[in-house]
Amino acid sequence: MNDGFLRACRGESVDYTPVWLMRQAGPFLSRYKPILAKYDFLTVCRTPELAAEITIQPVDDLGVDAAIFYSDITTTVVPMGMKLSYAPGKGPVYANPVRTSGDAARLRVPDDVSEGLGFVFEAQKICARELASKVPLIGFAGSPFTVAAYMIEGAASHTHVNVRKMVFGDPETFHVVMDKVARQTTNYLRGQAEAGANALMLFDSNAGMLGPRDYLEFNLPYVKRILADLQDTGVPLIYFGLGQHETLPDIARCGADVIGIDYGKKLRNAIDELGPNVSVQGNIEPYVLYQSRENIYERVAETLADARGARGHVFNLGHGVPTDAPEAMVKALVAAVHEQSETS
Amino acid sequence: MNDGFLRACRGESVDYTPVWLMRQAGPFLSRYKPILAKYDFLTVCRTPELAAEITIQPVDDLGVDAAIFYSDITTTVVPMGMKLSYAPGKGPVYANPVRTSGDAARLRVPDDVSEGLGFVFEAQKICARELASKVPLIGFAGSPFTVAAYMIEGAASHTHVNVRKMVFGDPETFHVVMDKVARQTTNYLRGQAEAGANALMLFDSNAGMLGPRDYLEFNLPYVKRILADLQDTGVPLIYFGLGQHETLPDIARCGADVIGIDYGKKLRNAIDELGPNVSVQGNIEPYVLYQSRENIYERVAETLADARGARGHVFNLGHGVPTDAPEAMVKALVAAVHEQSETS
Repeated sequence: MNDGFLRACRGESVDYTPVWLMRQAGPFLSRYKPILAKYDFLTVCRTPELAAEITIQPVDDLGVDAAIFYSDITTTVVPMGMKLSYAPGKGPVYANPVRTSGDAARLRVPDDVSEGLGFVFEAQKICARELASKVPLIGFAGSPFTVAAYMIEGAASHTHVNVRKMVFGDPETFHVVMDKVARQTTNYLRGQAEAGANALMLFDSNAGMLGPRDYLEFNLPYVKRILADLQDTGVPLIYFGLGQHETLPDIARCGADVIGIDYGKKLRNAIDELGPNVSVQGNIEPYVLYQSRENIYERVAETLADARGARGHVFNLGHGVPTDAPEAMVKALVAAVHEQSETS
Repeated sequence: MNDGFLRACRGESVDYTPVWLMRQAGPFLSRYKPILAKYDFLTVCRTPELAAEITIQPVDDLGVDAAIFYSDITTTVVPMGMKLSYAPGKGPVYANPVRTSGDAARLRVPDDVSEGLGFVFEAQKICARELASKVPLIGFAGSPFTVAAYMIEGAASHTHVNVRKMVFGDPETFHVVMDKVARQTTNYLRGQAEAGANALMLFDSNAGMLGPRDYLEFNLPYVKRILADLQDTGVPLIYFGLGQHETLPDIARCGADVIGIDYGKKLRNAIDELGPNVSVQGNIEPYVLYQSRENIYERVAETLADARGARGHVFNLGHGVPTDAPEAMVKALVAAVHEQSETS
């Protein structure tokens, strides 16, 4: 197996900077579209062979150094009692948003996490087997804050009014929700490591919703608890807190081996603030994929230069691949990372 | 006139920290609702007596130290050729989004800014007259980037895919749009100063859309140009770049007297990074308004403490007042700022 990704996560020497891309399994890939034209999204997520196929596609088609399991952060909490559906064009919706202490009390944390989520572990076993001679498999979950925010709103939201009101107006209920989601998340990630995931990542897409003080009170403690519980899996742990730019000295001590950095943060500043005990992952602007090859090459060189001084660097975008990014440019970006970082 | 706000903008001594609140004229005010129940939003904006009445309400009802003119950033560019309408529940929509170089070429910059915007200057004359013995009036506009983003998307957007694609894929067209919007914005703000505004503010709600490098190339230069052009008005200039947390040393030199800080940035860090030549405005978490009086009091004290060391401090929220914030708590926050900052 090409283990450059795992080595960079641990801060060990590498032959070249490993790269993978958030949302690398997506509609910009020509081989993805026929599958999603044939099956709806939830069916793909819940059919192990299909989820595995989509997980592996970018490894073969883009030359990335890690696969990330193809799934959605909203499925994890269905066994907790959330009623999930996909409205066309609206994305995932929960019919029973969590708004009151009664709603929070009704949430279950199954003793057996494979209850209702067995399809994930089945798919990961297929991935782990098929990727064994290729690249590591990253298992993942939404962070408890990001998942709880979705459960409270019930659907995608720009303003997150209901989440914010619960955090500030009813913090007791919010902590009940967070505690339960955190326990489910720990079990879910442990199950993925047992199914063969070689690294585990927490996506905290809503981390920027709270300012520094409130993030440290309402969000980060649950991340820490989960990552502490997962230390014994022995696999590298990654945390990505989108939009949380002021608390990196705290985030550096959350228990992750690697901290993802979004494109809004200067990578050099991030490395300075994180200190020498963690690796970084990131953070090129995703929309450079709409620029010329020459521009992409130049921006990759800048990002690699900015990352010097990091304990380890996993190259990534600072956010997901845009859904209609030109596939050739995505390949060009991956090749540019490898070519320019090679230590001969 | 209570000139504490203007003095803090200029870094002069004050008897207490002046405070006003972004979106202080809004539906949380009991006297606002009856007006908006009777007239639609665009009618209110375009009827000088109504816009003036709503502008002045929070001065009388909340005890704030400045009024901000009641308007919407989308109206400014209607005379440039944008076809604006309000769809109920969807907010402002432009029927002719700017997507191509042809669209950009068709945008006009009227020689006389009062063409199509006379209602704004009429309303501000009323405000200036009625506020003369009370508090200063802040005129404002959307920053060119934020306004251009709206023109390109055509409607509110979470992902801003069209804006991002134009910035990175067709930067020439983007610069044409920015140049024209910047000229219209300069004329618009100058007109407001002539109508009696005592300070001028640029709201850059989309500043965080671009990472540091691209913000410095595609956004900040236009802010600088506008503010340079407005120096001769003699009124304090304020710039608020929401979500732009890494470029404050550059923003400090944009030509503004005051830099607004959002709640995602630590105020002490902001003051350090801005240096001694500008005042700061901000940045308490808006949703503390859903907490108890005791909590609000404590959070106000923390914000005041964090702002010590600033050249001048205008107290504000780190984002707008939530639409259904409890009016009594908004009053309590304003009173807490005055009480705790008084220099006896």
